[in-house]
Amino acid sequence: MKVINVGLIGFGTVGAGVVKLLSANALLIEKKLGARLILKRIVDLDLTTDRGVEVAPGVLTANVSELLDDPEISIVMELIGGYEPARTFVLRAIAAGKHVVTANKALLAVHGEELFTAAAVKGVELLFEPAVGGGIPVLSAIRGNLSANRFSTVLGILNGTCNYILTRMTEEGAEFAAVLKTAQELGYAEADPTFDVEGIDTAHKLCLLVSLCFGSRVKLEQVHTEGISALSPVDISFAREFGYKIKLLAIGKQDDGCIEARVHPTMIPLSDPLADVNGVFNAVRLAGDFVGPVMFSGRGAGMNPTASAVVGELIEISRNILAGIGRRTPPLGYLDASMAQIPLKPMGEIVSKYYLRFSVVDRPKVLSRIAGVLGDHGISIESMIQTARSTQESVSIVIMTHEAREADVRAALAQIDGLEFITEKTNLIRIEDNLE
Amino acid sequence: MKVINVGLIGFGTVGAGVVKLLSANALLIEKKLGARLILKRIVDLDLTTDRGVEVAPGVLTANVSELLDDPEISIVMELIGGYEPARTFVLRAIAAGKHVVTANKALLAVHGEELFTAAAVKGVELLFEPAVGGGIPVLSAIRGNLSANRFSTVLGILNGTCNYILTRMTEEGAEFAAVLKTAQELGYAEADPTFDVEGIDTAHKLCLLVSLCFGSRVKLEQVHTEGISALSPVDISFAREFGYKIKLLAIGKQDDGCIEARVHPTMIPLSDPLADVNGVFNAVRLAGDFVGPVMFSGRGAGMNPTASAVVGELIEISRNILAGIGRRTPPLGYLDASMAQIPLKPMGEIVSKYYLRFSVVDRPKVLSRIAGVLGDHGISIESMIQTARSTQESVSIVIMTHEAREADVRAALAQIDGLEFITEKTNLIRIEDNLE
Repeated sequence: MKVINVGLIGFGTVGAGVVKLLSANALLIEKKLGARLILKRIVDLDLTTDRGVEVAPGVLTANVSELLDDPEISIVMELIGGYEPARTFVLRAIAAGKHVVTANKALLAVHGEELFTAAAVKGVELLFEPAVGGGIPVLSAIRGNLSANRFSTVLGILNGTCNYILTRMTEEGAEFAAVLKTAQELGYAEADPTFDVEGIDTAHKLCLLVSLCFGSRVKLEQVHTEGISALSPVDISFAREFGYKIKLLAIGKQDDGCIEARVHPTMIPLSDPLADVNGVFNAVRLAGDFVGPVMFSGRGAGMNPTASAVVGELIEISRNILAGIGRRTPPLGYLDASMAQIPLKPMGEIVSKYYLRFSVVDRPKVLSRIAGVLGDHGISIESMIQTARSTQESVSIVIMTHEAREADVRAALAQIDGLEFITEKTNLIRIEDNLE
Repeated sequence: MKVINVGLIGFGTVGAGVVKLLSANALLIEKKLGARLILKRIVDLDLTTDRGVEVAPGVLTANVSELLDDPEISIVMELIGGYEPARTFVLRAIAAGKHVVTANKALLAVHGEELFTAAAVKGVELLFEPAVGGGIPVLSAIRGNLSANRFSTVLGILNGTCNYILTRMTEEGAEFAAVLKTAQELGYAEADPTFDVEGIDTAHKLCLLVSLCFGSRVKLEQVHTEGISALSPVDISFAREFGYKIKLLAIGKQDDGCIEARVHPTMIPLSDPLADVNGVFNAVRLAGDFVGPVMFSGRGAGMNPTASAVVGELIEISRNILAGIGRRTPPLGYLDASMAQIPLKPMGEIVSKYYLRFSVVDRPKVLSRIAGVLGDHGISIESMIQTARSTQESVSIVIMTHEAREADVRAALAQIDGLEFITEKTNLIRIEDNLE
């Protein structure tokens, strides 16, 4: 039986999952490949922690050169995360003619161009299915069987921590801070949750999806990114009254020679299948000009699902090696020379429907003055709720607009928030109810 | 620019979609392949009908040999459907060293072994993503990035006609026959709807899914197949009372060294995402040992979605041709030599929960006698509804059982249906509420 030697850098949770999978399903993989995948080297600085998986003696080392300089190792898995030393290790692996599989969305979203170019020059594969949606094989589908389509939209629920928190806030009417605390206790959120709850992780993943779908590289700083930490149960409850659920969506669109790429809390209709993607599950929906809407869902993170995606990529690369070829498909699906620089639409130019929650002193003519300012900016109202008069000083007026330009809405709000009867900054949530 | 010549046999709806796609997205495909796909020959007996797409002069012919004997054509698309002459054409194409893409599930479900063997001997690809789920790229995912998983379950809503009819029956409380009639008028059902509504088309597709997921060929006659024509709005309405929806499901399972493969109306919980797959949409859900549950949904049929899957396969094969290799991945994901012959579980041995609707004369002790027979066969009752006493002669008793062996249920029903108070044959629907 032929042997393909692989090496793993980063023996954390996902790394341990890969070790477990390669052992548990070794025979299954042989039946598909006609070759054996041998995990020849694992590199990690921590040589002592028990990860609950068996490692053959001599495989684990703290010296990355024992892996990167080993000519027998054909494929390197980079599972350490972060920018450095991940970037250096990936570049060294490529320079040594090794194929690379990485789960590192942050690295690719920021240093993708450098890494993809290096892989192209060297003629090796640089695959990253585990970087988006855990085990959901959506990147492979975009590069693969869906590649005859011109995509107009890609959107997704891409961060399990946020989706878990939002699901519990929705089901229990709980406050963000309280749910975050229990999520941390349960291990669903990091001690420093910023990357997740402020939408940065989602934005990293959106960069990759947009690049694959539209053939144009998008960088993190080009993505408008809002997280979920400012969401209040009040908005979730109003959303439901209007027939909506709030999800942290990654939204990519392409039309009129422009790309939109944005991450923010979004109201979607309760009838939208994405509204039923709850807890730590992830989902991605694409709209292609021929395939129409297609949706993928599954576990978006965790040891085992992510290991499935990592080893799936090992198998893809191994099929190339066994066929005697180096690189078969460019990492973003498009030939490197065909990647375009499609301009990003400025956030002010996007068109959306808006949920606006005004906090006002309860007195006559307040509503007509708000509606007047909105009208002056060309924003028309689809529906409205005013909370019952109460003994409190401030009441809420909630307005759902028809489609409007973001810049017009921002200008109107700037003016309204300066009016004397406004008691708090107006809350804005975008609505997407026209999504395929 | 390099050129890859392809040929199309069967210029029907999907064929016209392929012609349209290859023209509309020619430049996009070039940007991904670095080569041009040229549709050199279209074969159809009907040379005159206007399909609404442009065909270059000299391309359309009624003589299949002008395609099959043309050494410049590398890939053949078989889109005529049915067993013959499709089988002969595919075998001739393979014998001539051409790669084949087919949408023909019936052909593969019945003659798959012969065709896959021929393709293996000749070292050509035989791909069939368009045969299952229209544009949904589920077969590619199973052969591709999910292939490190041992699958325990594959299930799906695989026939748009049935799902459209069931959706309307559910939403409108309408009878099967009435909805079928309007479906035929709208073009969602064939003049002879047997293949669709009796579950045969779904069973063909299940054969392919099961073979791919479990690495064991399953033939049509091994699949227990029931359609939707016997379903009544009464059952749909009782289902809802218990919190279920009825869908025609294809169910494949693997455990204890046995495979289950069955197609039948199935009650699934309203909270199951499959319950929200409505109209002509299709969906497939898989459970893998590492990835967990993953679900795919989209348009399961029609000109454009199926064309997306056909051209997706052309692109996959073209990537091999451009890399200078013949066949890269066996059609079922497993090496031909590794395909197993896993025994199928006899239908009597399956374990399920059951919905049983008894039609009885409304008089004392009926329920206790039914419960007694069920108990004698080891079948325990989870819940029960008895319809209100009416002036009618017959009332319904609906029982939901706990898990039971099908053979025990069948034996109990045979006995119960012989009792003097039973007015009609008892109606049985299987329940799957434990699906991942």
